[in-house]
Amino acid sequence: MSCSSTPAQLSKIVDELCDLHACKYLFHSNLLGGRCPSGISLESLVLLSRELFFPGFYGEERICEETLNYHTGVKCVEMYNLLREQFAAGYRFGLREQDTELSDEEIKARADKAAIEVLKEFPRIRKILATDVLAAYNADPAATSLSEVVLCYPAIRAITNYRLAHAIYKIGVPIIPRIITEIAHSETGIDIHPAAQIGSSFTIDHGTGVVIGATTIIGDRVKLYQGVTLGARSFPLNDAGNPIKGVARHPILEDGVVVYSNATILGRITIGHDAVIGGNIWLTHDVEPNERLIQRK
Amino acid sequence: MSCSSTPAQLSKIVDELCDLHACKYLFHSNLLGGRCPSGISLESLVLLSRELFFPGFYGEERICEETLNYHTGVKCVEMYNLLREQFAAGYRFGLREQDTELSDEEIKARADKAAIEVLKEFPRIRKILATDVLAAYNADPAATSLSEVVLCYPAIRAITNYRLAHAIYKIGVPIIPRIITEIAHSETGIDIHPAAQIGSSFTIDHGTGVVIGATTIIGDRVKLYQGVTLGARSFPLNDAGNPIKGVARHPILEDGVVVYSNATILGRITIGHDAVIGGNIWLTHDVEPNERLIQRK
Amino acid sequence: MSCSSTPAQLSKIVDELCDLHACKYLFHSNLLGGRCPSGISLESLVLLSRELFFPGFYGEERICEETLNYHTGVKCVEMYNLLREQFAAGYRFGLREQDTELSDEEIKARADKAAIEVLKEFPRIRKILATDVLAAYNADPAATSLSEVVLCYPAIRAITNYRLAHAIYKIGVPIIPRIITEIAHSETGIDIHPAAQIGSSFTIDHGTGVVIGATTIIGDRVKLYQGVTLGARSFPLNDAGNPIKGVARHPILEDGVVVYSNATILGRITIGHDAVIGGNIWLTHDVEPNERLIQRK
Amino acid sequence: MSCSSTPAQLSKIVDELCDLHACKYLFHSNLLGGRCPSGISLESLVLLSRELFFPGFYGEERICEETLNYHTGVKCVEMYNLLREQFAAGYRFGLREQDTELSDEEIKARADKAAIEVLKEFPRIRKILATDVLAAYNADPAATSLSEVVLCYPAIRAITNYRLAHAIYKIGVPIIPRIITEIAHSETGIDIHPAAQIGSSFTIDHGTGVVIGATTIIGDRVKLYQGVTLGARSFPLNDAGNPIKGVARHPILEDGVVVYSNATILGRITIGHDAVIGGNIWLTHDVEPNERLIQRK
Amino acid sequence: MSCSSTPAQLSKIVDELCDLHACKYLFHSNLLGGRCPSGISLESLVLLSRELFFPGFYGEERICEETLNYHTGVKCVEMYNLLREQFAAGYRFGLREQDTELSDEEIKARADKAAIEVLKEFPRIRKILATDVLAAYNADPAATSLSEVVLCYPAIRAITNYRLAHAIYKIGVPIIPRIITEIAHSETGIDIHPAAQIGSSFTIDHGTGVVIGATTIIGDRVKLYQGVTLGARSFPLNDAGNPIKGVARHPILEDGVVVYSNATILGRITIGHDAVIGGNIWLTHDVEPNERLIQRK
Amino acid sequence: MSCSSTPAQLSKIVDELCDLHACKYLFHSNLLGGRCPSGISLESLVLLSRELFFPGFYGEERICEETLNYHTGVKCVEMYNLLREQFAAGYRFGLREQDTELSDEEIKARADKAAIEVLKEFPRIRKILATDVLAAYNADPAATSLSEVVLCYPAIRAITNYRLAHAIYKIGVPIIPRIITEIAHSETGIDIHPAAQIGSSFTIDHGTGVVIGATTIIGDRVKLYQGVTLGARSFPLNDAGNPIKGVARHPILEDGVVVYSNATILGRITIGHDAVIGGNIWLTHDVEPNERLIQRK
Repeated sequence: MSCSSTPAQLSKIVDELCDLHACKYLFHSNLLGGRCPSGISLESLVLLSRELFFPGFYGEERICEETLNYHTGVKCVEMYNLLREQFAAGYRFGLREQDTELSDEEIKARADKAAIEVLKEFPRIRKILATDVLAAYNADPAATSLSEVVLCYPAIRAITNYRLAHAIYKIGVPIIPRIITEIAHSETGIDIHPAAQIGSSFTIDHGTGVVIGATTIIGDRVKLYQGVTLGARSFPLNDAGNPIKGVARHPILEDGVVVYSNATILGRITIGHDAVIGGNIWLTHDVEPNERLIQRK
Repeated sequence: MSCSSTPAQLSKIVDELCDLHACKYLFHSNLLGGRCPSGISLESLVLLSRELFFPGFYGEERICEETLNYHTGVKCVEMYNLLREQFAAGYRFGLREQDTELSDEEIKARADKAAIEVLKEFPRIRKILATDVLAAYNADPAATSLSEVVLCYPAIRAITNYRLAHAIYKIGVPIIPRIITEIAHSETGIDIHPAAQIGSSFTIDHGTGVVIGATTIIGDRVKLYQGVTLGARSFPLNDAGNPIKGVARHPILEDGVVVYSNATILGRITIGHDAVIGGNIWLTHDVEPNERLIQRK
Repeated sequence: MSCSSTPAQLSKIVDELCDLHACKYLFHSNLLGGRCPSGISLESLVLLSRELFFPGFYGEERICEETLNYHTGVKCVEMYNLLREQFAAGYRFGLREQDTELSDEEIKARADKAAIEVLKEFPRIRKILATDVLAAYNADPAATSLSEVVLCYPAIRAITNYRLAHAIYKIGVPIIPRIITEIAHSETGIDIHPAAQIGSSFTIDHGTGVVIGATTIIGDRVKLYQGVTLGARSFPLNDAGNPIKGVARHPILEDGVVVYSNATILGRITIGHDAVIGGNIWLTHDVEPNERLIQRK
Repeated sequence: MSCSSTPAQLSKIVDELCDLHACKYLFHSNLLGGRCPSGISLESLVLLSRELFFPGFYGEERICEETLNYHTGVKCVEMYNLLREQFAAGYRFGLREQDTELSDEEIKARADKAAIEVLKEFPRIRKILATDVLAAYNADPAATSLSEVVLCYPAIRAITNYRLAHAIYKIGVPIIPRIITEIAHSETGIDIHPAAQIGSSFTIDHGTGVVIGATTIIGDRVKLYQGVTLGARSFPLNDAGNPIKGVARHPILEDGVVVYSNATILGRITIGHDAVIGGNIWLTHDVEPNERLIQRK
Repeated sequence: MSCSSTPAQLSKIVDELCDLHACKYLFHSNLLGGRCPSGISLESLVLLSRELFFPGFYGEERICEETLNYHTGVKCVEMYNLLREQFAAGYRFGLREQDTELSDEEIKARADKAAIEVLKEFPRIRKILATDVLAAYNADPAATSLSEVVLCYPAIRAITNYRLAHAIYKIGVPIIPRIITEIAHSETGIDIHPAAQIGSSFTIDHGTGVVIGATTIIGDRVKLYQGVTLGARSFPLNDAGNPIKGVARHPILEDGVVVYSNATILGRITIGHDAVIGGNIWLTHDVEPNERLIQRK
Repeated sequence: MSCSSTPAQLSKIVDELCDLHACKYLFHSNLLGGRCPSGISLESLVLLSRELFFPGFYGEERICEETLNYHTGVKCVEMYNLLREQFAAGYRFGLREQDTELSDEEIKARADKAAIEVLKEFPRIRKILATDVLAAYNADPAATSLSEVVLCYPAIRAITNYRLAHAIYKIGVPIIPRIITEIAHSETGIDIHPAAQIGSSFTIDHGTGVVIGATTIIGDRVKLYQGVTLGARSFPLNDAGNPIKGVARHPILEDGVVVYSNATILGRITIGHDAVIGGNIWLTHDVEPNERLIQRK
C-alpha cells in the first residue's frame, strides 16, 4: 500500500515534537507531582457556583424550600472538594514558576485552608450578586422580571465569575482566578481581570467587548454598555524594555458612573461620581463628578 | 487531623446559604411543579433546529434524498416534544412572575398547542433563511460557496436562532425566546433581541459585538458589519425612577441599508432605504434614503 | 384526547420540510459517499493540536520528560487519523461545490498525503507559537508568567488555530481551515481568516472583536488590541453585481506595528514598520514607518 | 456507483418492518401518552437504591457522619422522582394490557402515592439487608470483613434488588418489580421472582444459576448455594391448554434450611426447618425438619 | 522524592510488553487497514436490532403508528451503516487469519452487499421472534402479558441475538456472529452458538447456564429450562492430537421436545418429537418420540 | 395540591435513613480520608489491562508494529496511576477493618511501591495468558482461530482478570483482587477466587456457573466445562459457631485433569494428573492419576 512509509514519517515527527529544548516554555512536566489546573474542572466549578448562588435557576434538580438544605449541603461539599483540588494545583503552578519547593503536605494544607476561606465568602458574594441582579433589572426596559435577568443575562454570569475569582485572588491562589474570568470572557465576551475592584449594584448591558483591567477601581451603582474599555494608556518599561508589573495603570470610576457603548477610558484617571461618558468616546483625562461627556457629531 | 473542624464550618456555610430571606429573588423553588426552563435542553433544541433547517450540514447522520423523509420525520417528532416540554416550563416561569395560577393541565394544553403552531412555521422560516444565506454569499468576496456560508458563518447561526426565537416570541411563550437568542450571543457575539423585526436577505459580516434592540425594525436586504449597535438613546422613567417597559426606542432601518463596522445608531430614528452608514459613526438622527454617512477623518 | 390531530399535522410539516426544491442550497446529501466535515470532530482536532503544541498544559494526562515520547506518539497517530478523515471530507465538500468527480480512492489518497504534510509542519508551527507566547508575556504587565499566557490567554488559542488552519489552507484542503478559525472565533471573539499571512511574535491583547481579513499581510512583532478591524474598504463587483473573489483588499502591516483598541484599518493600504495606530481610529490610507496616529480629542 | 439501488431496497425493508399487522404484540405505541418503563432509568434507580442502603460503599461522593444527612436528602428526593416517573410508566403499561383507561391525572396521583409508600419502606428494608450481610459473612470462611461482603458479594446485590422489588410488588405496581429483579439476574446470574417471600438473614453463596420461583416461601436464616432451583414441578392447564396463572406451585423452605449447589427442588413441597439438602439432589417431596438429604454415590 | 526511579522502571516494562515475539498471537496490528471488529459497536448494533424488532419497547423515543415509519427508516439506515462497517471489519479479520489479501474496495463491496442481504432478513426474523414471544408466554404461569415477556425475559434477548447472528453466519461474515451471541451470553448466561439451527416457537425458561453447541439442530416448539447443555460428547482428533473442526457432534431435538433444568444431552443423538427429558439427566443416546425420561429417585 | 405533605414525609424518611446506629456496618464514612475502592475505576482498570495484554484486540485505537511502543507507554502510565490510586484505597479499606492507623504518606508510598511491583508482573502474566489462549483453541473444535479465542471467549476474560487479581493478591493489597474477579464473575458467570493457584494452559469451555474456591490448587493443562464447582465440603467452626478462616478446604487438581460440565468436586481432595471427571458427578474423595470417573446411567 502507498502508505507504507507513513509510520516512519510519523516517528520522525514525534521525535521532533519531543525535543525538550524546542518545547521549553510550552511543556508543563507533571508525572508524579500534581496536575496542571484543569480548565474542565474549573468549568464544573463555575457551574456549581451558579447552582449555589442561584438555586433552582441553574442545575438539573427540582428544589423546594424544604429540600434546599440537602441540595445546598451536597453542593457545598462538592464545591469544597473541587476548590481543594484546584487550589492545590494552582499553588503548585505558582511555585513552579518561582522555582520554590514546598512539600505536597504543605501544599495540600494550604489549599484546604484556602478552600474553606473562600467557601465562607459565598454568602457575602451572593448578597452582592443580588444587588447586581436588581441593578440590571432596573436599568433595562427590555427586562421583564428579575428571574429573566438571573437566567438570561450574560452580564450576571460574567460578574458572578468575577466576584468568585476576586475572592480567590484576594486569598492569594495563583492562576485559578484568571482561568475563571477567562471562562466568562469566552462565554460572554466580557473580560474582567480578577484583580479589579468592583462595588455593589454593578451592571453591564449586552456586554460583548467590555474590558476591565487589573488595577481598575469601580464604585457602587456603576453601569457599562457593550464594548467599553477600561484600560491602560501606557506602562513604564524596565531596563530590559519590558513593562514593569504591578503599577496602577487603569481608571477609577466613582459611584454612579455610566459609560455608554464602545467608549475607551485609558490610564489611572478618575471619573467622578455620577458622571456620564457617551458612546465611542476616547478618554484619557479625569472627569468631574456629574459631568456628561458626549461625542461631538 | 487538622481538618477535623471542616464539617462544622461547612455546616455553618450551608445554613447561611439556605437562609430563605437572603436568597429571595435568587431562588427558583420548583419541587413538585415543573422545572425551570433548561439551558441545556434549549441548546439541544437549537442544534436540532439547525439539523432541520440545513439537513446534512448539521447532525451526525448521512442523509440522502430518499432517506430525508425518515430523518426529518424523527427530528420533527423530537422537536415537537422538546418544544412542548420547554414551552410548558416557559409558561410556568411566566405565570410565577405574575403570581397567576393555572392548572398543570391547562399549561400543558397551551404548550402543546404552541408547539405545533411554532413547528408549522418551520417551512416558512427555512425559506427566509435561504435568502439570508444567499445574501451572505453575495456580500462576501471571501465566501467560496453557499455551502461554506451555511457551514461556517456565525451570522447564519445567530440569524437562525433569532428567526426561531422570534416565531416563539410572537406566539407569546415567555423567557424561551430570550434564552435562544442568548445561546447565539454566547456562540457568535451577536446579540439580537427576539422581539426585533427583521426582513429577508439579512446578513451580518463577522458579527462580534453586534447589538440589535427589542423594538428595532429592519427591512429587506439589510447588511451589518461587526460591532454595530442598534440601541436605545434614552428611555422614559416612571415615577419610581425606573424605565418604562415597552416603549419603541430603537431604530428603523429600511430596505437595503448597509451599516459598517462599529457604527452606533441610537433611538427611534429612521434610516431611509439604501442608505449607507460608515464605520465608527455615532448616529442619533434620521437619515435620508440613499444617503451615505461617512466618518470624517 | 385533544392531541389526536397532532400526528396528521406533524406529517404535513414533515412533507413540507422534505420538499427538495425548497431546501435547495440548504441540503447536503451524503448517504453513501462521505460525510460533511464535522464541527464536533474538528473541535476534537483543535483540542488535540493544543495538547501537541503545549504538552502538560492541555489534556488530562500527567506527562513527564521520560513519558513525553509515548504521549506525543499516541497523539500524533490520533491527529493523523483525524486529519485524514476530515481532509477527505473537506475534499469531497470542495468537489461537490465544483461538480467535479473523483474516485473515493483518489480522495483518500489525496487526504492521506495532505495529512502527513500538515503533520510535518507541526514542529515548525510550535516554534513560531513559542515566539507568540513570549510576545504576549512581554507586552502585558498583568501577565505573571509565560505559563499563565499559555494556559489563559485567548489570543494564544486564536493564534494557534490560525497557524494550524493556515498550514492546512496552504496545502489546499477546502473548508476545513475556515471551520478551524471559526471555532476560535466563537471561543475568543477573534476572527482571523485562514488565508491571512502573519509573521512571528504576533500578539493580541484581550482580543474580543478583532477581525483580520483574508488577504491581510502582517509582519513580525505586530501587536493588536481588542476590537481592531483589518478589513476591506470596498470590493470590485462583476457584471452580475456580485463581488469579484480573490482580489487583494486588506491591509499590509509591516514589522513592529501596534494597533490600539477598536481601530479600523480598511483596504489594501500599507502601515509602515513600527508605526503606532491609536484606538478608535478609522484609517483608509497608507501610514509611514514609525508614524504615530492618535485620535484627536 | 454500484450502491445506487440501496435506498430503494432500504425503503422496501422499512415498509415491511412498519406493517402494523406483522408487528402486532411486538410494537408498543406511545407517542402522546407516557413512555414504556425504561430499563436505563431503572438501572439508575437500582444504583441509587444501593447508595441509599449502603452509603459510602456505592456512589462517587465522599460522605462523613456530618454530611450523611445532605447526601441522603438529595438521594431521597432523586429516588422519589425516579419512582414517581417509573411507577406512572408501570401503571400505564399495566392498564394498556388490561385495556382499561385512566386519566393521566389519576395515573400520576396513584404513582405519586405509591412512590412515597415505597420510600417509607426503605429504612425497614435496610434493617433486613443488615441481617443478610451478617449471614453472608458468617457463612463464608473466605469473607474477610463485613465491608468486603457489602462491596463484593453478588448475592447482596441480588437480594437488595429483590427486597426493593418485593416492596414495589406488594404495593401493586405492574412490571417494574420484574425489571428490577431481571437487572440483578443479568448482573449476578441469580433469578429471584419479586413475588417470592423471603425472611431475614438470607444468603446465597456464589449464586450463578439460582432460580427462586414466584410462589416460593422462604423462612429466616436460609442459605442457598450456586445453581439451586426452587421451581415448579408441573402446572395445571386451562381448557385452552395454557397454564393457569396464580397457583401456588413452588416450595416452602422453613427457617434454617441449607441447600447445596445445583440441587433442584420442585413443586409446592415443604422443607422442614433446619433441614440440609445436598448438592445435585433432585427433590419433589416434603422433607422433615432437621433431615439431611445427601446424593448417594 | 522516592518515586524518582519510577519512569525508568516503567520504561523497562514498556519495552518488555512491546517485544513483538512475546506478543505473537496476542497482538492485532491494524494501523492503516481497518480496525478489529468492535465489541462496543456491536453492542450498539444489538440494541438497535431490539429497537427495530420491538419498536416502543426498546429505545428512548415515543413512537406511535403514524410515526413508526420515520423511526423505522432512520434506524434501518443506521443499522445498514453499522452492518457495513462491522462486516468489513469482520471480513478483514477473517482474511488476516487466512493470510489472504483482498483490496479494500473488494472488502467494502462485499460488506455492503452482505449488509443489505442481512437487513432484508429482518422482517422474516421478526416474524419468528413473534412465535418465540408467544411460546414463552404460554409456557410460563408467571408471565402476566406478552408485553412483559418482550420487555423482561432474558430468553427473548438471547434468542433475538441468536437469530440475528445466525442470519449473519449464513451469509458467511466471519467472527461477527460469534461476538453477537457472546454479548447475549454475558447478559443472560445463555450461550447459543450462531451456527446452531433452531426452529420457531422456541423458548428457554430462566436460562442461566444453557449451552447450545454449533452443530445442534432444534425443531419447532422446543422448550428448555435453565442449565441445559446440548453439547459434544467427544470429538475426533487429527494426527496432531487436536480436534477436527466442522464435524457434526451435537444433538438433534425434534419438534415439541421439552428439556428440564440442568439436563445434559451430549453427542450427535436424536431426541424424538415431543419427548420430555427430566432435570439433571445425563443423556448420551437417542430417545424415542413422546418418550418421558425422568431421573430416578 | 395533594402532594403538599410530601416534603414532610421525605424529611422523616431521610432522618430514619441517617440514624447512625441503624446503618452500622452499612455505612462507609470517608469525607476527608480517601475514598472507598471504586467499582467503576476498577472496571476501567480491567479494560485497560486487556488492552495491554491483547493490543489491537481491545481498545479503540489503531495500532501497528511501529506505534505499539507509544500506545503501550501511554497505557502503562495510565495503568500505573490507576493502580496507585486504587491500591491506596484498598490499603485504607483494609486498615479501617483492622482499626489500624497509618499516615496518608505511608499509605501512598506503600501503594506506589505495590503498583510498580504489579506492573512488573505484566510481561510474565501475558506469557501465561498466551498458553491459555492456545489451550482454549486446541480444546474447542468450534474455534476457528486463535484471534477468535482472544476476542470472543469469556474464559479468556475471566482468566485474565484472575491472573491480574492473583498478582495483586500475592502482594497483599486488600479487597481490590476480589472486586476484579467479581467483575469477571458478573460478565462471564465464572467465579474464580483470587487466592486460588492455577497453572499455565488453563481453559474453561462456555464457563457459566464455574466456581473455583480460595484454597484450590490447579496444575498445568487443566480443562473445565461449564457449571463445574471446585468447592469446600464443610468447614470447621470456632467456638462462636462461625467458620474458621484460612483453612485449606478446596480440591487440588494435578496437571492435565479434565472436568466435564456441572461436576461438583468438594473438599481438600486430590485429583491425580490426567484424570477425567464426567459431567454431573458429585465427588468428595481422592481420584487416582489417569482415572476416568463417569456418571452411571
